[in-house]
Amino acid sequence: MAELEEVSSAKCFGGYQKIFKHKSAELGSEANFSVYIPPIFTQNETFPVLYWLSGLTCTEKNFIEKSGFQQYASQHKVVVVGPDTSPRGLNIEGEEDSWDFGTGAGYYVDAITEKWKNYRMYSYVTKELPTLVQQNFPVDPTRQSIFGHSMGGHGALICFLKNPGMFKSVSALAPIANMSMSPWGMRAFTAYLGPDKEAWKEYDATELVRKQAGKGGEIPEILIDQGTEDEWFKDGKAYLLPEHFVDAAKEAGVPVKLRMQEGYGHNYYFVSTFIRDHFEHHAKHLTK
Amino acid sequence: MAELEEVSSAKCFGGYQKIFKHKSAELGSEANFSVYIPPIFTQNETFPVLYWLSGLTCTEKNFIEKSGFQQYASQHKVVVVGPDTSPRGLNIEGEEDSWDFGTGAGYYVDAITEKWKNYRMYSYVTKELPTLVQQNFPVDPTRQSIFGHSMGGHGALICFLKNPGMFKSVSALAPIANMSMSPWGMRAFTAYLGPDKEAWKEYDATELVRKQAGKGGEIPEILIDQGTEDEWFKDGKAYLLPEHFVDAAKEAGVPVKLRMQEGYGHNYYFVSTFIRDHFEHHAKHLTK
Repeated sequence: MAELEEVSSAKCFGGYQKIFKHKSAELGSEANFSVYIPPIFTQNETFPVLYWLSGLTCTEKNFIEKSGFQQYASQHKVVVVGPDTSPRGLNIEGEEDSWDFGTGAGYYVDAITEKWKNYRMYSYVTKELPTLVQQNFPVDPTRQSIFGHSMGGHGALICFLKNPGMFKSVSALAPIANMSMSPWGMRAFTAYLGPDKEAWKEYDATELVRKQAGKGGEIPEILIDQGTEDEWFKDGKAYLLPEHFVDAAKEAGVPVKLRMQEGYGHNYYFVSTFIRDHFEHHAKHLTK
Repeated sequence: MAELEEVSSAKCFGGYQKIFKHKSAELGSEANFSVYIPPIFTQNETFPVLYWLSGLTCTEKNFIEKSGFQQYASQHKVVVVGPDTSPRGLNIEGEEDSWDFGTGAGYYVDAITEKWKNYRMYSYVTKELPTLVQQNFPVDPTRQSIFGHSMGGHGALICFLKNPGMFKSVSALAPIANMSMSPWGMRAFTAYLGPDKEAWKEYDATELVRKQAGKGGEIPEILIDQGTEDEWFKDGKAYLLPEHFVDAAKEAGVPVKLRMQEGYGHNYYFVSTFIRDHFEHHAKHLTK
């Protein structure tokens, strides 16, 4: 069993909001992650687990402090796990220079360039972390789902689409839905994956959903919320591009519900307003 | 009409979470405060207003980012106003040296010592801010209540007790309930009010409630939540002393409900868990 150190623990809505750290093999650095454990009433009870992926600049703390999700995790009896958003402290030249690249901006890919070889958030999130969680917490590994915000919405969509059967459901709030076409994605993918755009397609939600043509019937409806006043979306800003994802999904026959939320921004006030709906979306698949 | 500058605005649970700044006459400095305005469906509609006072180290942001209160303010249709916790940037010697004294630690008193003469959070919260709010936002000045956390719980209790009729109801989460006996209070009161402990009684919730003997029938029940694992309370720690307040209230015939919350700490995970109950407590008095 990998060694976990408890960093903090606080009672919240009858359960416990905890943060742990461990030495990550994938990232070659220490990594923090959060775990919410709902109230436990029965010995040996196991819970479904919902993975939350955060956006640019976030650590494992933003979601647990700002979204108010614990109310719904407690109510639906779901364990919620939230990793950090990149390796930290690797002393890679330039890793601290930008808020949207390097530290806090792992984009949930496995980098293939030598310089960023430790940036393996994709394998961390889909392999190392779930194994660690299954070994250490009362979760049922057959009931897992994933969701996220912004860069983390991108992460949730690609982790779901690349691993059929691993997650029961997926949802996203203001996801970067077409990384290859987003200024954020173009910069990060060039650095982490190199200039060959074929490699980018493996981590681009719009490209991945395109490949599901004919398999849509097996995929549960994908829920996406997008605020109309989101500063990365409104006035033709092309950072998020949820419409590209929706078009590709429809073409491929993959069910997707995009809800335009009038007047909402890109912030945690938006996330906190709709997080209840996302728990209800996942609970349909996780708790029966 | 005093000049207000909008610092930020974000849609949240159908209403708007805003921050404003203005030049405060009481504090002789710029001051920020937050305002949540619930969804407005009718022109010229006015809402009751609930004042939130925050704890040590907080600004006007902690409560609006971490408590999840907007859900309940939206539902009960209440405007919620939250000031900062002290003047800022006055360049008083020592104001930045401690987390529990000076900047971020105004303790909601009007200082009488020359050095701290700008520390007039009591008058700011009970006079300048309500006037500003009534002039600028759709509130009904006959329906006001007040609540807070830790230092802000102390603030809420004293503002309520010192101003009969001004607030319809009061509640507190982990308040510093007997400032004159708390290490925090002894240091701050000595600096802000001088060594004469008679002056301290004017800003000590336990001393103030003692003076209500015979008038208890006019006071609505005071709700207090206290976590049993609160690091400033457990193991005999004498920083908060809610039991002193409750004893004095009972002696004076003032109705108070102290709820000991098993396993909870002093943090916003505790606040977010019980904030719904506090809205319900105030809604009984504010919305009929």
